[in-house]
Amino acid sequence: MNQFKFKIISKDPNTSARVSELSTPHGKINLPTFMPVGTKATVKTLSPEELKDLNANIILANTYHLYLRPGSDTIKKLGGLHKWMNWRNPILTDSGGFQVFSLAQQKRFGKNGEKKLVKILEDGVEFRSHIDGSKHFFTPEKVMKIQSDLGADIIMAFDECAPGDSTYAYAKKAMNRTHRWAERCKKEHIKLQKSKKIKQALFPIVQGGIYDDLRIESTKFMKKLNLPGIAIGGLSVGETKKQMYHTLDIIKDYLPEDKPRYLMGVGSPEDLLEGISRGIDMFDCVMATRNARHGSFWTKDGRFQLRNKEFKEKKEPLMKGCKCYTCKNYSTSYVRHLYMEKETFGLRLITIHNINFLLDLMNKSRMHIKKGTFNAFKNKFLKHYLKKS
Amino acid sequence: MNQFKFKIISKDPNTSARVSELSTPHGKINLPTFMPVGTKATVKTLSPEELKDLNANIILANTYHLYLRPGSDTIKKLGGLHKWMNWRNPILTDSGGFQVFSLAQQKRFGKNGEKKLVKILEDGVEFRSHIDGSKHFFTPEKVMKIQSDLGADIIMAFDECAPGDSTYAYAKKAMNRTHRWAERCKKEHIKLQKSKKIKQALFPIVQGGIYDDLRIESTKFMKKLNLPGIAIGGLSVGETKKQMYHTLDIIKDYLPEDKPRYLMGVGSPEDLLEGISRGIDMFDCVMATRNARHGSFWTKDGRFQLRNKEFKEKKEPLMKGCKCYTCKNYSTSYVRHLYMEKETFGLRLITIHNINFLLDLMNKSRMHIKKGTFNAFKNKFLKHYLKKS
Repeated sequence: MNQFKFKIISKDPNTSARVSELSTPHGKINLPTFMPVGTKATVKTLSPEELKDLNANIILANTYHLYLRPGSDTIKKLGGLHKWMNWRNPILTDSGGFQVFSLAQQKRFGKNGEKKLVKILEDGVEFRSHIDGSKHFFTPEKVMKIQSDLGADIIMAFDECAPGDSTYAYAKKAMNRTHRWAERCKKEHIKLQKSKKIKQALFPIVQGGIYDDLRIESTKFMKKLNLPGIAIGGLSVGETKKQMYHTLDIIKDYLPEDKPRYLMGVGSPEDLLEGISRGIDMFDCVMATRNARHGSFWTKDGRFQLRNKEFKEKKEPLMKGCKCYTCKNYSTSYVRHLYMEKETFGLRLITIHNINFLLDLMNKSRMHIKKGTFNAFKNKFLKHYLKKS
Repeated sequence: MNQFKFKIISKDPNTSARVSELSTPHGKINLPTFMPVGTKATVKTLSPEELKDLNANIILANTYHLYLRPGSDTIKKLGGLHKWMNWRNPILTDSGGFQVFSLAQQKRFGKNGEKKLVKILEDGVEFRSHIDGSKHFFTPEKVMKIQSDLGADIIMAFDECAPGDSTYAYAKKAMNRTHRWAERCKKEHIKLQKSKKIKQALFPIVQGGIYDDLRIESTKFMKKLNLPGIAIGGLSVGETKKQMYHTLDIIKDYLPEDKPRYLMGVGSPEDLLEGISRGIDMFDCVMATRNARHGSFWTKDGRFQLRNKEFKEKKEPLMKGCKCYTCKNYSTSYVRHLYMEKETFGLRLITIHNINFLLDLMNKSRMHIKKGTFNAFKNKFLKHYLKKS
């Protein structure tokens, strides 16, 4: 697995934050980083060149969506995800687990704690497509095969992501199943890697709901698998922010020191900084892109809504001093006009600003960790940002 | 008016086609050219940089839409259209006439030959906004003021665009009104220009329906106004292609030789070539951008629909040998996937290809006119293109 080298560059003296580098077959990733989400092999509204200009190190694509359409076999035939979507930098694909348990179920059958209509068996999960209701069956082995076909640099083990309000008994049951599936994923992954020139790195996913002992148990278990990275799943799924930060505090000392740590589905400015200070290296979230599509943008003063009439004739950019393409070239007035008129170029401009805002926050975090001033930076940013949010 | 110089570079020996240059305060336009339409101050899905990369010389924006939202006063306050939309090359605004008579009416009140719900008076036209039904009144003077506020390089006289199936009597009435309005536009325009450093060029619009004598009369009248260009309106509004070409043949010898000639609202590949061969220098049409949004793209073999299943796993680009960004970087399979998933980046990729297709056709036309081989080029292209269309 020497195509993936992880190196810690610098550690913050006051928090668990660290600056590191992860080498992959498609380039080096500077950590901590935020990964823009390209669900259907496109980060909504953006071109690969725009992502590069934003200094996006790595992007995420969704296994569940691409398996259903156009099909991972189709993408494999066309040369794999990197070539197909013209993104030659690192990609991470998720396991499809989260979507199987949320999207597939929600859209067709309503919400239900035990997910009766998504059939969970020891072997895998039977689910229905949220697009056409067709039946599918995901096993750990199948999910490894799909992700092998897609060809991302980092792939995720198949997990059961239990809801934030799961009982202890259910969270434990789901966690244990996730552990058994992680072992099967590892086994299958090793088999699939043998014939591959360009290697993939498999990350297992820690589960255990909001229960401290389960989280610790799961972290220990996944650490023992000795894979090139580790992810924390099942957070930001209904529990409070306080619970999430608490869970990160609890497991912090059990996480492997010499591996990248990825907190899944988390990506508000405050959560990124709180995560980094608790030793997290990687994040992903649809918030930056989804907010953009709803006219919502971030500045250091908080979150704002373009629909607001005060922006109609505003000459200044979305955020004063911001160096993104949008802020360098357009008034808030113009961006608002495009948004109000549902012009897709407007959605692109807001998306560029929002992603730049998060990546700039990551960039500044890395800088301050190196200087040993991360904690002061974080506190100052949050004090200002949360005042208005 | 010396900020606008028109120079004929080359004339085709076999047709009325010509290559020319029009200088404007925002740069030189190579003619014949196609102007991408940016109705609401954005060419749908594209950035100004992408338009420049496509070698778009000039774009069009719509007076009617921008007057209603965000308001021409707002755009004036923010520094005018060029600055506001970050497009520093030439812009043409239409007069709003076509929209007042089509859009405003269609959306709210259904179709009607005499347009009873759009009240046409000698002084101007009362109409209702297609957005909120609010009442507005456009006079030639007001339309000059709005276009002065928007600040485009080329502006259009207010005209009445009668439907393609108008009776002789109605077409004549509308034409005569258009003549009187053109005189009033010229007068108001001269007044508004006095205080301006950056000048605007006013083009009058020839009307007269499908009636030869009216078209000739209108062409003679507009020529006499001696403005820096001349437009032909009221074509491509319901009459047949044959009628349109016939009208262009009829008026050809009455058009001013030393002025750019603009055929409004026309932009299919075949109409562009037929127009050029009849001495037309400028075109605009929403077809390239609208087709893209409906998954339809042009190649030299005709027009194709991405929805077609044959494209699902097609490795090749939309058009073999095409040098546009889309064809250089993406398979048809990927573009189709984005289109099927309603991803806006897909609409952008198709739009880039379609606009490039038309601008490349213009580029080739200019080259062949200079070489004296335009007619052969046109016939060969159309024979191949129309076989499949």
